[in-house]
Formats: sequence, C-alpha cells, structure tokens
Amino acid sequence: MIKVSINGYGTIGKRVTDAVLNQADMALVGVSKTTPNFEAFQAYKKGIRIYVPKESQKEFEEAGITPSGFIEDMIKESDVVVDATPNGVGAQYKQLYTSMRKKAIFQGGEKPNVADVSFSALCNYDEAVGKNYVRVVSCNTTSMLRTLCTLNKVSKIQKVRGTIVRRAADPKEVKRGPINAIVPDPPSVPSHHAKDVNTVLKDLDIVTMAVIAPTTLMHVHLLDVTVSDPVSKEQVLEVLRNTPRLSLVSGKSKVTSTAEIIELSRDMGRYRNDIYEVVIFEDSVSTRGNEIFIMYAVHQEAVVVPENIDAIRAVSGFSDKTKSTEMTNASLGIRPGYLV
Amino acid sequence: MIKVSINGYGTIGKRVTDAVLNQADMALVGVSKTTPNFEAFQAYKKGIRIYVPKESQKEFEEAGITPSGFIEDMIKESDVVVDATPNGVGAQYKQLYTSMRKKAIFQGGEKPNVADVSFSALCNYDEAVGKNYVRVVSCNTTSMLRTLCTLNKVSKIQKVRGTIVRRAADPKEVKRGPINAIVPDPPSVPSHHAKDVNTVLKDLDIVTMAVIAPTTLMHVHLLDVTVSDPVSKEQVLEVLRNTPRLSLVSGKSKVTSTAEIIELSRDMGRYRNDIYEVVIFEDSVSTRGNEIFIMYAVHQEAVVVPENIDAIRAVSGFSDKTKSTEMTNASLGIRPGYLV
Repeated sequence: MIKVSINGYGTIGKRVTDAVLNQADMALVGVSKTTPNFEAFQAYKKGIRIYVPKESQKEFEEAGITPSGFIEDMIKESDVVVDATPNGVGAQYKQLYTSMRKKAIFQGGEKPNVADVSFSALCNYDEAVGKNYVRVVSCNTTSMLRTLCTLNKVSKIQKVRGTIVRRAADPKEVKRGPINAIVPDPPSVPSHHAKDVNTVLKDLDIVTMAVIAPTTLMHVHLLDVTVSDPVSKEQVLEVLRNTPRLSLVSGKSKVTSTAEIIELSRDMGRYRNDIYEVVIFEDSVSTRGNEIFIMYAVHQEAVVVPENIDAIRAVSGFSDKTKSTEMTNASLGIRPGYLV
Repeated sequence: MIKVSINGYGTIGKRVTDAVLNQADMALVGVSKTTPNFEAFQAYKKGIRIYVPKESQKEFEEAGITPSGFIEDMIKESDVVVDATPNGVGAQYKQLYTSMRKKAIFQGGEKPNVADVSFSALCNYDEAVGKNYVRVVSCNTTSMLRTLCTLNKVSKIQKVRGTIVRRAADPKEVKRGPINAIVPDPPSVPSHHAKDVNTVLKDLDIVTMAVIAPTTLMHVHLLDVTVSDPVSKEQVLEVLRNTPRLSLVSGKSKVTSTAEIIELSRDMGRYRNDIYEVVIFEDSVSTRGNEIFIMYAVHQEAVVVPENIDAIRAVSGFSDKTKSTEMTNASLGIRPGYLV
C-alpha cells in the first residue's frame, strides 16, 4: 500500500485525490489547503483529512474545519507527496520533501529541473521507475505526447508542426481573462510546448505556436505530423481507436465542438464532467503522403490525472508499465475507442 | 405506477427523464428524439427506449439506433406525457395528446393558454390536481415563485420590483449569442417574467426588467420585495434556510459567483452538475423597514425538474402536496439549508 498525500487541493489536487482514493494499491494520508474555501468544506464533508500551514490553523477552526495537523505532519506520514501547489511553489516545497526524504510528483507548471525526469506514461514510464522526483508534464504536453507516441507506432515521426489554441481560464476562475480577445501566447515561436515535449522525446523536430482563446472548457490542438512512410487515414484511425487515453468523437454523433464534448461527459455521468482522454475529432484525421493531420481537444482540468497515478507507482518502484496503466485506466473508466 | 413518456429529449427532457427513473411511483415508457445525435446515443446506451417520427426511422437505423416505435406508439402507452419539445411545438402536439386522451405537462416556453393551469409546486400545487393539461412555468418564473411564496410566509408581499440577468445560451449551444454584449431583453418594461408570475400569483403587483449577459452557467435575479410589516434580516434568513428547493451560499465559504456555484456542484458529484435549488447569495439578503433585498442564481437547465415531477403526480390525482414535494426532494437529494 503506497501512502500518498496531496499538497495543494485546487483544480489538479482535488482530482488526483479522488483518483488516489480509487486505487487498490494506494492509501490517502490527506490533503493540504491554505484557505477554508468551498473546496476545503466539501473535502471535509467527504471525510478527507485536511492539513494546513501553521498560520492558517485559526482561520480554519473559526470556519468550522478542524485540521488533522500541519502540512509537515502530512508529509511525514507519506511515502509519496503529489505536489499540486501553484506554479513555482512546488520548487520551494522541494527542500522540505528532500529534508524529509520523501519522494515527490511535481506538475508541469514547475521547471523541468525540479525533477529527475519529466514524465508521460505512454512514452517513458520506465525512466521514472524508482526515481525520487518526477514531473508530470502539463496538460497540453501530456496530450501531445500521448498522441505522438501513439502515431509513432504507425510510422516513425520525422517532424511535428503544431498549433495550440488554449482555453483562457478554468471554469471556476472568475478573475482571469481574456474574455474577448485571441492572444498569441507567446507571440514568439516556438511556444514552450515544443520545448516541453523535448523534455521527454529529446531529439524530436517539433515547433509549436500557441494562442489563448476566450473559453473555459478545453484546449484544442491542430497538428501536422510528418512520418517516415506514406500512411493511410485508416491505418492511423485503427491505432488511435485501439489506444486507451485517446478517445474519438465522430461527426455522425454530431459532436462538433468542445461544448458538445463536455455536454456528453455530463450526460455520461463523469464526476465533475472530467475527461481523462485526449478527445480526437475523427473527421479531422487525414493523411497526405507521409503527413498526418489531426485535431483533438484536451480537458485541461483532468487529462493529467492518469499520469499522476502512474507516476506515483513508478517512483514507488512498480516497474510494470502495462500493468500500471491498465490499473489506472480501469479505476477511472478509461477505455479505448469512441467516447459515445 | 404512473406511466410517463418524455416528448423531446433535449436540455429539459433528458433531465426529467432521469428524474422520472428515480421515482418509486413512476415508470418510464420512453423518450422521443428527432435526430440521432450524441444525446440519443447516450440514452440508447443507457437502455432507454427511443421513439422517433416516421420520417426519421431510417436515419436512426443507419446511425445504429433501433427505435422502439413511433412517437404516437409512445404516447399511446403513457398515462402522462411530459412535453419538452422546443418552444411553441408543444402547442402543436397538444392536438395529438387530446385526440389520444392523454394528460400532458407543458414547459414554460409554451403560452399559458396551452394548459388549464400554470404551475409552481410551492405556490399552487392544489390547483393542478386532476387537471388534464398543466404548464410548468419557465426556469426564471419557477425560481421567482419559489422565492416569493416563501418570503410571503415572513410577511405578506405588497409589491415586487426585480431585475433578471439571463444567461445567453446553455452550455451545449454553440450557435447562440450574445458572446460580447449585454442585451436588454426586451428593452420594454415589464419583461414577460412579471406577467408569467401573474399566471400563478394573479393579483401580485410585480414589475421585472431583464437583460441577457454573455455567460452559459446560470441566471441571476436581483429582487426588491416590499412586504406588509417591517422585517429583520434574521427573520428572512430563517425562513429561507428552512425551505427545501431554496439553498444558500455564504461568503464565508468563498462562493462569490455563478462559476463557483457550478464548481461546487461538480465537486458535490451532482449528475451533470445540476442544481435543482434556487441558490441564494446569503450576504445579499438584507432588509430596510418593510423592504427585502435578495440576489440569487438559477441553474436554467435543472431548476424546473422537481416541478415537472410534482406536476406529473398532480395531474394523476395525487392530492397531497407535502407528500409529493417530499418524495421529489428525497429522490433528487434536495435538502434545505446551505449548499456547502
């Protein structure tokens, strides 16, 4: 039984928490929270142990939440800490994890050098086995890596040119924009996503450009992938259809946008309408000689959850990648094929 | 056992369907659908019988959905039809319901004269008992009526002046706007909401003004209610806290917007993040002499679901209002008090 704690209970932290609770081989120590907001109340009502910074104890108690202890107490009880603190805060916490000799999983908002290895379960699980510090790459990079490591099975990838249309804010964020502009982000080329892909696929020729669009639901990627040999659309689709963590939607079922994908997820009864899979618009998949074109959507709140779970197993010494990803997929209801 | 069919399986229809499946005293005959979109596929995968117009049969079969029959077959098997067809289509279907001697529940998008009575469970359940045709008023009117019939218990209402800030489109709607404007709708005064409240509370002095804002999540109402006697904020809050179908959120839990209300609903694991309750911003509740001020949010996709269920019972001759609303509330997880 791997004892896991979650440092930071926001968008990613609360989802990894619920996923940990679903694993047969993991036990949740607790979660840390700095402010007694509705997420803290909801966790407390669910019976989850909450650990707080010393200076916040009084505020929590006055709000009616009795902390189980301080963050240091939580880390002490853990085999692995999943750091889901805001971007850059994880690097500050690393000193604590190191001094307490605890393994830690960081998120993609941290710089790559925070960890021994940047991680994508479908691409380089083996490299993370037994390591002390692993960084799960960002939602965009995770999705691109899943797709590229899958397309690489059809024919070896030579070159990737991609556009990333990012959502502006998460659904719960009421103070972030833009709400009425499309923002090149960054206006320079390449965007950091290509560099982040290179932290895992080190020699890949990849250039990405990114803009932010005024929406909260999902990101969308538009990729042009050059492979070694001419390939047919049917060859590509067959591999995509057989890979868990990739899912397809078809124009036949009239799913034509990120809005309808999220609506479908709501109808499916997914908790928090979370979509762990990269969702490929099937009708976009096409080929021209040895070029593959593809468009897919990324649920930024949820897509890295399976990789966090696999990373916990990997650092704990669980060396069977296939078994780990199968356990994770089964626990989260992830199957290959069509979303509906 | 009341045999119920749902004519129209869109935003409201699919939610009433799931609520009917949760009632111990109801059996679902099936649902009708005109296009084999993802909602139809999802219903079919859940084992729900789907009935189609004659001219759509081939399209459904080609898409892989075998209809259980035509819409007329579905209505024939039913005791009560819930009409959740688009605005104005219900009135056309009424001829069919009448010719087949079936009771029907219409939605607020139909004109009041489509039915024998316009319905709000907390205000006039008794008037609907045994009737053939009942119209559940719109999401905005339903919410205003719940609130007003509750405030009326504190002190008799003399006058209501209200502003309604409507959401522009539902989350799944990708072709509706505005996405960057605030639209007086209508620019004339009063908006139809006041008239619609008067279909239930016939003599109430009420004026409403409405605008549309670029958001998909919830409506917000801002009311100024004049009552007969001076009242205290605490008197008002006590009645609000004790009324199911009204729910409060407090600034203490840092729920300050419709975005955070929906996020909370996701965290709570509500199916489709549905909120059946009117959600009152507790900090907005205030009084000045015999005036009560209040702001609350309305989840337009879900708020009329409980009233549809009660209306089915009422037309079927179930005369105990308290018992019906309690059964409905229990089946949907609706309790009085704070949302978190």
